[in-house]
Amino acid sequence: MTTIQDVARQADVSVSTVSNVLNGRGNRMRPDTLARVEAAIGLLGFRPNKLARQLKTGQTPLLGLLVPSLANPMYGSIAREVEAAAQERFGYRLLIGSTYRDQAKEAAFFEDLLDHGVRRVIVISSLADEQHFESAAARGMSIVSYDRRAVAGRPASVGHVTPDNFEAARLATQHLIDQGHRRLAFATVSGLTLSRSDKIAGFHAAAEAAGLHKDARVLDGGALNEYGDSVIAEVGRTTGLRLGSDTERPTGIVALNDLLAIGLMAGLRETGLRVPHDVSVIGIDGLFLSAVSNPTLTTVQLPIREMAHAMVEQVMTPWTGSGTCELVFAPAGLIERGSVASPPTADRKHQAHKLHTAKPSV
Amino acid sequence: MTTIQDVARQADVSVSTVSNVLNGRGNRMRPDTLARVEAAIGLLGFRPNKLARQLKTGQTPLLGLLVPSLANPMYGSIAREVEAAAQERFGYRLLIGSTYRDQAKEAAFFEDLLDHGVRRVIVISSLADEQHFESAAARGMSIVSYDRRAVAGRPASVGHVTPDNFEAARLATQHLIDQGHRRLAFATVSGLTLSRSDKIAGFHAAAEAAGLHKDARVLDGGALNEYGDSVIAEVGRTTGLRLGSDTERPTGIVALNDLLAIGLMAGLRETGLRVPHDVSVIGIDGLFLSAVSNPTLTTVQLPIREMAHAMVEQVMTPWTGSGTCELVFAPAGLIERGSVASPPTADRKHQAHKLHTAKPSV
Repeated sequence: MTTIQDVARQADVSVSTVSNVLNGRGNRMRPDTLARVEAAIGLLGFRPNKLARQLKTGQTPLLGLLVPSLANPMYGSIAREVEAAAQERFGYRLLIGSTYRDQAKEAAFFEDLLDHGVRRVIVISSLADEQHFESAAARGMSIVSYDRRAVAGRPASVGHVTPDNFEAARLATQHLIDQGHRRLAFATVSGLTLSRSDKIAGFHAAAEAAGLHKDARVLDGGALNEYGDSVIAEVGRTTGLRLGSDTERPTGIVALNDLLAIGLMAGLRETGLRVPHDVSVIGIDGLFLSAVSNPTLTTVQLPIREMAHAMVEQVMTPWTGSGTCELVFAPAGLIERGSVASPPTADRKHQAHKLHTAKPSV
Repeated sequence: MTTIQDVARQADVSVSTVSNVLNGRGNRMRPDTLARVEAAIGLLGFRPNKLARQLKTGQTPLLGLLVPSLANPMYGSIAREVEAAAQERFGYRLLIGSTYRDQAKEAAFFEDLLDHGVRRVIVISSLADEQHFESAAARGMSIVSYDRRAVAGRPASVGHVTPDNFEAARLATQHLIDQGHRRLAFATVSGLTLSRSDKIAGFHAAAEAAGLHKDARVLDGGALNEYGDSVIAEVGRTTGLRLGSDTERPTGIVALNDLLAIGLMAGLRETGLRVPHDVSVIGIDGLFLSAVSNPTLTTVQLPIREMAHAMVEQVMTPWTGSGTCELVFAPAGLIERGSVASPPTADRKHQAHKLHTAKPSV
């Protein structure tokens, strides 16, 4: 690659003379010197190194993006939208990393970004502790955290963009209740991120409002292994397989997300249970895969593109007012497809009976 | 962020003195000056900018990765493995970009990488024309191209790592033939990349070897729109929908990849055709999603992790011998699941009849 030294040698001038030309100070030198430098630049096909200029301005047109795992199609979809907005609107490229929701990996990525002169990062993590974010922010990093709310009462230099996870799960649960389901469950993975907690709270809120909280269960399908989010479908499948022999199994299940729902339907199928005839399943995300699953997945659509654009805007022009900046996006709506129906008739009778006998104790 | 200027001010020395300390030339200055600079560095928590040092060495520990679209889970899986190998083995991070298989977008990405001092890039593209790769290679870029063979007889400075796409499709087709299928099809998208051409050639080769080439069709489901690979499933679905009214429809279909196969099964289902009872479908990739589809997808597994590791090795320590470097990976094997069965009985009779009546003309 041609360097500034090569140009200086070719033009028989000093490196600082070439530098002056590159930085628009050519008018201060003799015209024949300027012409010689310009000829050398053209002859050698020299491209001034943006890195060198970025060192002076302290700006590198790279946007850091940290995701739990690139293998999760949901984060692939978000990354695609973040990339499009960053590239088209600001000419930024993505420096990307998977962290498997490991705080040490996130912190190491921040160090590398700072070392690379990257000052803007979007983090999809939803970890409870954002201390390492604050530490990086104090060192000049503009940070937007996705998929969790700011912690109330604690001032944060970190911006937050998130779907309303509570509302998304509440909406999904309410849809099952509206279809007549009385024995409800929320299927999730081990480990409570803030977004998972919010979804579980939304699930319980809907169940409680309908007087169904005693029969509302949280089904933990197990932990993600080192493959991270690409095994979320497998965790859902495990939950589905367990339900085969569960005599008190729910008739309506809200899944943590679409991928888990797709795995859950596979597990239920393997035990001989039919979706939605025996068990209804509803997802959250609105991933493109949910439209081609069998049955097609009823799901709560999140506004992926809008949130991605908001994250890019916020990380490029950080909030400078007092207090914290938090953008919470309502779900884009419920997409009714083939995975939710009324509960089995026998179950409806069973439930009606239970509701009736339960009345005196109210 | 603390700059070298801040350190110089704090220590009351010149910037070049601080620079001398940072570059291991502290022994040439007065001990009390050195001590003052070191104290200022410690006090201000200054971290020397790696970018500045990289400018001198010409090495930036970033690996470029160009994919058709981040929204395609197959590329997410490859990106995950590339990232793991680059990070764990070489301490490199990924600078990633989606190109939607657009040559101009690829070329622009190369320019940006060169500007950022990035000298290593893996490109998943399979475009026929790699002239822009050669041009970047001539300027000092180490490039590995995924999913296509080197062009015979043309020396290339670009390395190639690819699955044996011909063999993968041949294997898939042979499996359908072994199950008794006689009317075969290959379902694909519009536009011929080299990998798609290789797969179609493998499909035809298997059909021809079995004397079934007259009934072997290529089904083009249409082009990918601006959303790129996330709509491959939709293209498959379109093909499936069309087959509903096709009286000469194939009984066994090889899909370009697993995502297209999943969409194809959805489209067939919507027209009332059952997989595998009416139509068998086989994929290529071995994506985790193929294990939880309904029916579960029979597919040819590609050795994703091995290929990703080989790409990282090759791009980090480029081939310096004469000739070109091309690594072709055999499929890891056939995964038999639920989407392939014998053709419908009526069809088997129909086929036997056709084969019989066709004999005199041989």
